Amino acid sequence: MPTQSNTRPNIVVIICDDIGFGDLSCNGSTMIKTPNLDLVARRGARLTSMYSGGPTCTPARAALMTGRIAPRTGAARVLFPGDNRGMNPNEVTMGAYLKGLGYATGCFGKWHLGDIPDSGPLKFGFDRYFGLPYSNDMDPMIVYRDEENVEEPADVASLALRCANEAIEFIDKTPKDQPFFVYFPFTSPHHPITPEDKFIGTSEAGLYGDTCEAIDFYSGELYKHISARGQIENTIFVFTSDHGPWWEGSNGGLRGRKFETWDGGMRVPFLISWPAMIPEGQVISQPVATMDLLPTLCNLLDIKPDSSMPFDGEDISDLFMKGSIADHGPIWYFDAFSLNAVRKGKWKLHRKRQTWGGEKFSQWSLPQLFDLERDPGECYDLGARHPDVVKELNDLMEKFEKSLNLAEADDREWWKGSTLGDSAGWNVQKV
Amino acid sequence: MPTQSNTRPNIVVIICDDIGFGDLSCNGSTMIKTPNLDLVARRGARLTSMYSGGPTCTPARAALMTGRIAPRTGAARVLFPGDNRGMNPNEVTMGAYLKGLGYATGCFGKWHLGDIPDSGPLKFGFDRYFGLPYSNDMDPMIVYRDEENVEEPADVASLALRCANEAIEFIDKTPKDQPFFVYFPFTSPHHPITPEDKFIGTSEAGLYGDTCEAIDFYSGELYKHISARGQIENTIFVFTSDHGPWWEGSNGGLRGRKFETWDGGMRVPFLISWPAMIPEGQVISQPVATMDLLPTLCNLLDIKPDSSMPFDGEDISDLFMKGSIADHGPIWYFDAFSLNAVRKGKWKLHRKRQTWGGEKFSQWSLPQLFDLERDPGECYDLGARHPDVVKELNDLMEKFEKSLNLAEADDREWWKGSTLGDSAGWNVQKV
Repeated sequence: MPTQSNTRPNIVVIICDDIGFGDLSCNGSTMIKTPNLDLVARRGARLTSMYSGGPTCTPARAALMTGRIAPRTGAARVLFPGDNRGMNPNEVTMGAYLKGLGYATGCFGKWHLGDIPDSGPLKFGFDRYFGLPYSNDMDPMIVYRDEENVEEPADVASLALRCANEAIEFIDKTPKDQPFFVYFPFTSPHHPITPEDKFIGTSEAGLYGDTCEAIDFYSGELYKHISARGQIENTIFVFTSDHGPWWEGSNGGLRGRKFETWDGGMRVPFLISWPAMIPEGQVISQPVATMDLLPTLCNLLDIKPDSSMPFDGEDISDLFMKGSIADHGPIWYFDAFSLNAVRKGKWKLHRKRQTWGGEKFSQWSLPQLFDLERDPGECYDLGARHPDVVKELNDLMEKFEKSLNLAEADDREWWKGSTLGDSAGWNVQKV
Repeated sequence: MPTQSNTRPNIVVIICDDIGFGDLSCNGSTMIKTPNLDLVARRGARLTSMYSGGPTCTPARAALMTGRIAPRTGAARVLFPGDNRGMNPNEVTMGAYLKGLGYATGCFGKWHLGDIPDSGPLKFGFDRYFGLPYSNDMDPMIVYRDEENVEEPADVASLALRCANEAIEFIDKTPKDQPFFVYFPFTSPHHPITPEDKFIGTSEAGLYGDTCEAIDFYSGELYKHISARGQIENTIFVFTSDHGPWWEGSNGGLRGRKFETWDGGMRVPFLISWPAMIPEGQVISQPVATMDLLPTLCNLLDIKPDSSMPFDGEDISDLFMKGSIADHGPIWYFDAFSLNAVRKGKWKLHRKRQTWGGEKFSQWSLPQLFDLERDPGECYDLGARHPDVVKELNDLMEKFEKSLNLAEADDREWWKGSTLGDSAGWNVQKV
């Protein structure tokens, strides 16, 4: 696939930690202003039915980075400091594919796919790393540069600023004839909310909104810096979230939040601009997945994927480039190792559910079949009206589950009976 | 307070079990048609910020029936068959007040304020009773006529029809010069969903929607029957819900559902018509509470309340009659004995939360202060911006809690550590 002037595009992938679909003004927020992200949306495409790889951090990032469903990757559930394990070292990440193509690759922010040094970014194809390997509510909280502990405990409030500066320095150090890949996973607006002083009071939506405006600002700093270098025309610039919002934030009126396989837990904002190749001002409602991004890049850049690590995601370049797509495969809603739900076209079948501590109770109402076009809030079970669809989607899930032949099945027990408050590695923090 | 022709108005109070704010077409549903209820809304007032007395059945009904917060009444939490207890016998219900005024009083449907005979409707001021004393997912499931077991297990699907017929017969038997009070608590659309055959397939929202359309139909039957008797002009006709929806149903885009003190768990639909006295076509957003209804009736009918059982609710007749109201006191959000939140004006302070099995975990983010006018979905905590408001509302809650001097404190332990699935009295039913 040729690209502009036969120069490979630069790539920036920004992912936030827990930002909601409705927290961007281009997605309808009236209390948070995100002018820089709105500009990205105007200059490219805004996707309104983009699904993450899971309703928690680690699996969502594993799927984005590998193009594969998280349960295949050994990173199906949230990792904690002290787990002493990470994503399967055989996985080939977006970083590794792009590095293999000659890209300069840097990761600036929250990794959350395993411990440094054994399974940090430098083990998965990144030349440089600066940031927090785990969430901002996990102990110990260490800032790493590459594989070196440079700060403990982390000064979280200044991380976005410092990561942006590191990314900009990385871009500036990359020779102009070498393309760069900046993976920029914000540590925010994950609880606890700790915005940098200069953003406190900027939004109408409290500290959470201030943090979202900081995210917009630093996303804009990257965008503007690349623009100032004359490179934005040939940069694929992506903005998204790992999953739905948690204690605060807007899920855009959907049902559910982080930790849940309701759409509110897994439908995420997604903006992509590439002025040289992607028509401007598109709003696209086709259901697709963040794990489609890597297969899409492979197609656009003529990368031959590693056949031992086949993608679950699909090439969706036609969606951005031509505004059309052939039928997309099912959208899978995994909660760790549990395939809770599937979406195919307008239909979603919710077969299992994790309501912490109340799983048995929740099974009363399952399965539930929703028409997400008429009923995006998942209010009305149409299963009794469409038993054929229930059977079709249930069969689809069973077949897919059987095909997975998952290793490390003991991890499936991890959450069992958990009340979260007792979870190892999580620490109640006062802010 | 004089009423039309010095004849006391008839009163019909319909309350549904678990119907959501957004499940009525007059409240925005596009998948469920409720033409009869829409007519009630057009002929009177539709309230958009009406709060129930609790996010579960028993306390919500206790507050409606007594005009008092449920923790005062001995019915602060869900009652189960086998509890062998009910609402405090000293409580004076809407039924008792109206009976004392010469009304014929009948209750047709789900009582859920205690066991029959010891604390059934006939002990609380009703002349007649027909229906299910507990929820349609509790065992044993017995239909009572007055205090007699007439059917076990109950044929739930036909209950709405039979209750409507009983209510109509009761109305017809009441002499025309005697006013009647029909309290009509539907057992639906509470899970399990069991609509009458003739409604299956009528709605676009599955069996749940069909059940809502059945509710509309039978509400309409009562309305039409009273109209046909020439009495609708002087009938106060009320329609509401006990709390937010559960497994299915629309909370109208609010946050949370049944069992939660988010607004989605406690803001309910509320329609009131009284053509002789209430102007038509009103839409009222003033925050008020279902427990205001009894104090309001007392004022309208010149009833002297029992001073030993003082109301927490307020007379809000001016709201319907004149479209105005003096400042309303705080809206209290109780979860059983726990005062989780308060609303005053546009502000809501959420101080505690019950997320089943994850209470410790949920405390991370509390308290949270929301501006319900800008942010009805409770997405953005403004506490850090308005510490004065946090303090004011927190003080208000502490003062109110201290004033309560609640009896039966051991009941506070009832839910502690519960995962619901193990709750006594609840039985997983297959539908």
